[in-house]
Amino acid sequence: MNQNYIKPDSWSIIEEGFNTNRVESSESLFSIGNGAMGQRANFEEHYSGKTFQGSYIAGVYYPDKTRVGWWKNGYPEYFAKVLNAPNWIGINIEINGEQLDLFTCKKVENFRRELNMKAGWLSRSFKATLQNNIQIEVETKRFLSLDLDEVGAIQYVIKPVNGDATITFQPYLDSGITNKDTNWDDKFWDTLSVSQENNQAFIQAKTMKTDFHTCTFMESEVFVNGKPVSIQPKVNTDKQFVSFSYEHQIKKNDVYIIQKFGGYTVDRNHDKTKLVPAAKEVLKKAISLGFSGLLENQKQAWASIWEMADITIEGDVKAQQGIRFNIFQLNQTYLGKDSRLNIGPKGFTGEKYGGSTYWDTEAYCIPFYMATKDQQVAKSLLEYRYNHLEKAIENAEKNLGFKNGAALYPMVTMNGEECHNEWEITFEEIHRNGAIAFAIYNYYRYTNDYSYIPEKGLEVLIGIARFWQQRATFSKDKNKYVILGVTGPNEYENNVNNNFYTNYLAQWCINYTLENIQKIESEYASDYTRIMNKVKLSKAEMNTWKTVADAMYFPYSETHKVFLQQDGFLDKELVTVSELDNAQRPINQKWSWDRILRSPYIKQADTLQGFYLFEDAFTTQELERHFNFYEPFTVHESSLSPCIHSIQAAKLDKMEQAYAFYLRTSRLDLDDYNHEVHEGLHITSMAGTWMSIVEGFGGMRIKNNTLSFTPKIPKEWQGYSFKVNFRNRILKVTVSNNKTIFLLESGDDLEILVNNKAVLIKNKQLQTLNSISA
Amino acid sequence: MNQNYIKPDSWSIIEEGFNTNRVESSESLFSIGNGAMGQRANFEEHYSGKTFQGSYIAGVYYPDKTRVGWWKNGYPEYFAKVLNAPNWIGINIEINGEQLDLFTCKKVENFRRELNMKAGWLSRSFKATLQNNIQIEVETKRFLSLDLDEVGAIQYVIKPVNGDATITFQPYLDSGITNKDTNWDDKFWDTLSVSQENNQAFIQAKTMKTDFHTCTFMESEVFVNGKPVSIQPKVNTDKQFVSFSYEHQIKKNDVYIIQKFGGYTVDRNHDKTKLVPAAKEVLKKAISLGFSGLLENQKQAWASIWEMADITIEGDVKAQQGIRFNIFQLNQTYLGKDSRLNIGPKGFTGEKYGGSTYWDTEAYCIPFYMATKDQQVAKSLLEYRYNHLEKAIENAEKNLGFKNGAALYPMVTMNGEECHNEWEITFEEIHRNGAIAFAIYNYYRYTNDYSYIPEKGLEVLIGIARFWQQRATFSKDKNKYVILGVTGPNEYENNVNNNFYTNYLAQWCINYTLENIQKIESEYASDYTRIMNKVKLSKAEMNTWKTVADAMYFPYSETHKVFLQQDGFLDKELVTVSELDNAQRPINQKWSWDRILRSPYIKQADTLQGFYLFEDAFTTQELERHFNFYEPFTVHESSLSPCIHSIQAAKLDKMEQAYAFYLRTSRLDLDDYNHEVHEGLHITSMAGTWMSIVEGFGGMRIKNNTLSFTPKIPKEWQGYSFKVNFRNRILKVTVSNNKTIFLLESGDDLEILVNNKAVLIKNKQLQTLNSISA
Repeated sequence: MNQNYIKPDSWSIIEEGFNTNRVESSESLFSIGNGAMGQRANFEEHYSGKTFQGSYIAGVYYPDKTRVGWWKNGYPEYFAKVLNAPNWIGINIEINGEQLDLFTCKKVENFRRELNMKAGWLSRSFKATLQNNIQIEVETKRFLSLDLDEVGAIQYVIKPVNGDATITFQPYLDSGITNKDTNWDDKFWDTLSVSQENNQAFIQAKTMKTDFHTCTFMESEVFVNGKPVSIQPKVNTDKQFVSFSYEHQIKKNDVYIIQKFGGYTVDRNHDKTKLVPAAKEVLKKAISLGFSGLLENQKQAWASIWEMADITIEGDVKAQQGIRFNIFQLNQTYLGKDSRLNIGPKGFTGEKYGGSTYWDTEAYCIPFYMATKDQQVAKSLLEYRYNHLEKAIENAEKNLGFKNGAALYPMVTMNGEECHNEWEITFEEIHRNGAIAFAIYNYYRYTNDYSYIPEKGLEVLIGIARFWQQRATFSKDKNKYVILGVTGPNEYENNVNNNFYTNYLAQWCINYTLENIQKIESEYASDYTRIMNKVKLSKAEMNTWKTVADAMYFPYSETHKVFLQQDGFLDKELVTVSELDNAQRPINQKWSWDRILRSPYIKQADTLQGFYLFEDAFTTQELERHFNFYEPFTVHESSLSPCIHSIQAAKLDKMEQAYAFYLRTSRLDLDDYNHEVHEGLHITSMAGTWMSIVEGFGGMRIKNNTLSFTPKIPKEWQGYSFKVNFRNRILKVTVSNNKTIFLLESGDDLEILVNNKAVLIKNKQLQTLNSISA
Repeated sequence: MNQNYIKPDSWSIIEEGFNTNRVESSESLFSIGNGAMGQRANFEEHYSGKTFQGSYIAGVYYPDKTRVGWWKNGYPEYFAKVLNAPNWIGINIEINGEQLDLFTCKKVENFRRELNMKAGWLSRSFKATLQNNIQIEVETKRFLSLDLDEVGAIQYVIKPVNGDATITFQPYLDSGITNKDTNWDDKFWDTLSVSQENNQAFIQAKTMKTDFHTCTFMESEVFVNGKPVSIQPKVNTDKQFVSFSYEHQIKKNDVYIIQKFGGYTVDRNHDKTKLVPAAKEVLKKAISLGFSGLLENQKQAWASIWEMADITIEGDVKAQQGIRFNIFQLNQTYLGKDSRLNIGPKGFTGEKYGGSTYWDTEAYCIPFYMATKDQQVAKSLLEYRYNHLEKAIENAEKNLGFKNGAALYPMVTMNGEECHNEWEITFEEIHRNGAIAFAIYNYYRYTNDYSYIPEKGLEVLIGIARFWQQRATFSKDKNKYVILGVTGPNEYENNVNNNFYTNYLAQWCINYTLENIQKIESEYASDYTRIMNKVKLSKAEMNTWKTVADAMYFPYSETHKVFLQQDGFLDKELVTVSELDNAQRPINQKWSWDRILRSPYIKQADTLQGFYLFEDAFTTQELERHFNFYEPFTVHESSLSPCIHSIQAAKLDKMEQAYAFYLRTSRLDLDDYNHEVHEGLHITSMAGTWMSIVEGFGGMRIKNNTLSFTPKIPKEWQGYSFKVNFRNRILKVTVSNNKTIFLLESGDDLEILVNNKAVLIKNKQLQTLNSISA
């Protein structure tokens, strides 16, 4: 971990010095996105060293054929692949006939990269000495507009510093790309047309199989010392490529500048026959604003996001940088504007996890988006699953032989179909179904907006309840219902029986569904009739659900007074992580799979995840007992783990642990704890980082329909603040060592609980409380 | 199942009538082989319908790259692929310029195929009407010589029956082949040279990566009405192809005949630079014998195999055909001549199971080869594992982190390295290690030849004992040693804890190894010193083994008084197979994997497999209780299952079941029980068929170092007989309804047990006993 090359800074991610071994990691860390598209921080100019090219368009994927040694029934025919999209950022550069390539330059000095999170841009500067001994100074700036989300802009500035030079900018578009994870250099794009006129160029291409039509476009302008120059470019077009060459003689210390605007129009938003006109339209807007106008809008747009979402931390710049990086990346990935999209675990920063939606969305991301955006955003994310209900029913029916409208949501999906093909995940990691139900509950608990449940949510709940009832098995031996053959959140166990978390969720889902059916029957009669007509649910069926929920089995150790993660957990050799040789870690890179499986090591919170979701069902003493039992075996090799442990450690006043877990979750990628940042960032777990401050240190909960806080502060910090949008009130919470200040920035007066005491917060009046006393 | 198109016949497999849907299944069923090479029953002439081409050379494989969606540590980099080898059997045929192709003929009449098991040849005859209305009668005969095992011979006879015709035979060699299971039409062969002189042709080719060098060769002669004709053939050569065209005008009702000799010389047997001279040498021998001379030798060679290995059954021709088919195929696959080879589960009949050695060899094949061949053959099979011991140690060390010379043999191998890549098999189906130890014990038990153990076997046993000790985990909870995370023989369970069979084997392996160490210490002092110096085994280490073996845990149900297949078996919904809708079977083709895993259904004998191997450790009452408990849940979707159940049913006097299982095992492929015969035959389980007669009905055992029988007979049979080579005595056993006749055909007088009574069998004297009384 900790490559330690990212400079601590409260608002920026900064790298200084050029190191060819870090290029791929930096490409991930400096990624930019605007919810509609995103890209790794690849250089604009040619680079012959190790690099991982990636530009991604939201919602554009490819169903790659599943190849496994031994086919098992029910495997999906394909798995969705996040597709590397045509390259529009490329600008080849020639200086006196030599191509600029940082890998082959004689010298690269003063290399600096900055991702400015406050304003949403990426810049790079360096001084390079080419093989031909020409020295140039370069400054680039790039951003993807939040405002016009089909377009991005690049400014590339070159100053020759040891003599005059002939410089050529060759901006280009290239659809002759493929994926890094392609197995046999397969192509995934069909290029349909390449065209250009004046300074504009367009490549129309569609994805194979899925037929997503796109137009990749660009337009460029060049300047000398800030003044536009009119150069008739040389045009070069090929089957999957088009470029313009702007050659110019530049005097020593003069600057030659190109501003390139480019991006994608896609058939999710336009008629597929009108993608070029749409591209021209957005280019026109961008050009008329100009690079600086568009950049100004960018600053504004980010300012308004930060206004609501920022978290400040005083006295700990690394912690501050970490949380901002997390909030920034979440907003780069998903802004809640389009309910057809969702939040991919790697966002727009890599290819891995070939599918955009995991249970991460429901279990981790929804709380963040509920509290920092309009509640419509969270509702959109719920609707995404409602829209996939039919496919989830088909999945349970076709693959598992379930009947009667039981729904199994996919583990990984792009369009509602399962697109993962390890049996131990696809077929067995069924707890995802519970998280989807929990999100419905969580949305109502937080927003108090019940309308979603009679409108759509109940149908989802019914499908899920049906699944759990059918998935449970009556064990004569135990005289209880058991759930056999599952993988819990801890994926370092496969095919176990009676995973506590799964069984608990199953029981909860059934009870919660029954509770809502009752409520809707009495309070929403017409919805009730409509839904019951649709789902054909009898009292008898509901009774069978109830029978299963009431007699659900939970493995428990009388010796340890803890619920067991699964049957047989105590048969393991219970050697704690601290006794494990460091050379053996991370175990997923050092150990064979069987060894991991029979070890006691827990990849991520599992039983404790249950205690997190259903906190009120357990006493603090029970939580502490379980935390003390499981934490020592947890290796946190999933990005989704440390945040939960941080929240629980804070609750248990284990503030040193809480802080350590906070750093681990917030700087997971910045410090590369898991040795994999070059593959991309862990986006969805970043919402967990947010939770570890707001729910962990801030202690935010909803208790009996009331917003509640139990503020605590790590000793390393002087203070921290966050804001939440709670039921259309914007509440700012500022915590320091000896007090907590609440400011209701907008909305009606609000009674909250602070350390379990009711406090009335009045609009725009500061309310200062001693935060530490109970 | 039961396609019912194979005609019952005691010595031949016969198909009548041409059905294009059966071609691939028949290609499997009529496969021929001679231990060194083999081939599916592809037509010699061009066939444009659905066909599965396959010619295989023993020991020639390809390490195909492993591709899995999610890599797990320790996965082998490659899996071995059984390679389709260059085609030498092809003979294209033209009749008046039209290519003969049974798929496009106007009419095919009197089609008949016969695999004559007594003499080891395959024939085909038919009358075809071509598109050009020419009618021909065809008769072909083909065999792979047992005598000269590098060569095969084909005779192809054509008679035009409705007019004169110009007929061309175009015998060819073709190395431009690939595998059916290739994913992207990859090529696996490099053709090095194509040459021809006179009527001979040669293609030298080597496998990619593995560099197995081969020369595929042919020589042909043509005849009219039995008289040689000298035709100067037209030669056609290409990069991977060579052919000769023998054109001749044939009068109506005259016959045109080609005799083609061909085959492979390989660098396992010759210097790779001398493969063409070696091919010429063997061709010279074959040609000088001529087709009929070679065929005569073939009959002799098979006669001598049958002399020892035949089993006769009176009054049940399907049962007779079944057992002969099984014995025939085993002998086609492996004759024990080369200790570098082993017995692939599909033999030379298909590509599936890309590796030649499974635990099938030790658990199923060794008893057959011990009893029907010289004991050296079984010893060879044991040595095969001894020769791979270093790789097994490396496997345990590198992949599982084991130390100290613990050995884990691969689940599937070609050269001692693991070449299977499902974690639940590769890493977890570790009971294979036990079968390898058991085979050492079994060899000694049957042959009384102890020499192998001090020479080589003990080192293998020590590596295996070390493995089990390290693989077991001490459970504080149970105060016992447990074995976590395994897949037992029943592959319809994965990653279970305390599989009874595995735990029992582990305990047995340790105890057996300790017993042998003690014996060798006291009786083979110099071997003892040599081995201990090599393996560095301390008394302390042996004590840790003993601790594990003594405290091994076995899951047991007090309610049912049975050992449980694994922890938690009783949590399943125990619905028997008979209650299962037939439309749901075979479950491995109808159900998703999770559903199979959480069902109680057993793919193949698992706990009962343990009772089979360690029969003497349990009472007959215990066996009966376990049989009655597990049999109802067993779906026998592994070819290795029915034979074990047949043996146990016979022992328990459940003769109807024993007979039904016998038919299932013996006619598994002939009647295609598992809907997969088109992929190839199940060779290794055929040894189980032999066991179900000899050990099942015949009740053959070794009891206290004495050969023992308890003969029984299914009511469907009038009698049956088999022969065994027991310690250099050839004993023929003939069982009928009211008596059993023993004839010691050669060797010293022998005291045996019949129904637990001692009987002295004298050389060449018939001994007749009432077989049914106890």
